[in-house]
Amino acid sequence: MTNTKSKNDNTAVRRSPCPVACSLDIFGDRWTLLVIRDLVLGKSRFKDFANSPEGIPTNILSERLKRLLDHDVVVQMSAGQGSKHLAYQLTEKGRALLPVLKSMRDWGLTWEKDTRATMEEACPR
Amino acid sequence: MTNTKSKNDNTAVRRSPCPVACSLDIFGDRWTLLVIRDLVLGKSRFKDFANSPEGIPTNILSERLKRLLDHDVVVQMSAGQGSKHLAYQLTEKGRALLPVLKSMRDWGLTWEKDTRATMEEACPR
Repeated sequence: MTNTKSKNDNTAVRRSPCPVACSLDIFGDRWTLLVIRDLVLGKSRFKDFANSPEGIPTNILSERLKRLLDHDVVVQMSAGQGSKHLAYQLTEKGRALLPVLKSMRDWGLTWEKDTRATMEEACPR
Repeated sequence: MTNTKSKNDNTAVRRSPCPVACSLDIFGDRWTLLVIRDLVLGKSRFKDFANSPEGIPTNILSERLKRLLDHDVVVQMSAGQGSKHLAYQLTEKGRALLPVLKSMRDWGLTWEKDTRATMEEACPR
């Protein structure tokens, strides 16, 4: 029997068919959406994400980028002609997370004091 | 010197002033937004949350409910006249998370196959 499962067929390990639960299975942690935020802001390199103010540990960053690749949320490419470095870019599926980021940003700005948005230019309220 | 910090003043332990990071400090995990989803769906009791299909471990549920209480996202009350049981209810701050849930639900429904929404009545698309 041919294995027709794609690398993204994770229905067998899902907690439930709830789309919120399935979303959280991919990015339900303290860090992943910050990497998505950085990508929205135009960052693309591992070191850029690692240098963000929240200080994501590099082992966690590696694991999260791998997970985002596995779920087709980001793609990996050369950082530039002749560069040996790699860069990351959001896919259409990844860019579709913008409303999630915006809703969380708006909630934080409204309810958590002394917060300051860093995504105003990339995604105005 | 009088300590004027409220129980919710967590600015000292924040990773950054980014509203997305501050939001994730409160509910950036695989479980908390599922409890919020259940509250939106009308569930209110510890056992109701524990019986949801995702099967949240009760020690995690206890910790998450405490965190939500600490951040004024939920309030605790008697489950009914004469009842010795407790119930939980979303505050205004908690209800304001509905756009976050909706955006995650819509993303999951669009991009993760075989997902089925359970919040249609409580929050139509």
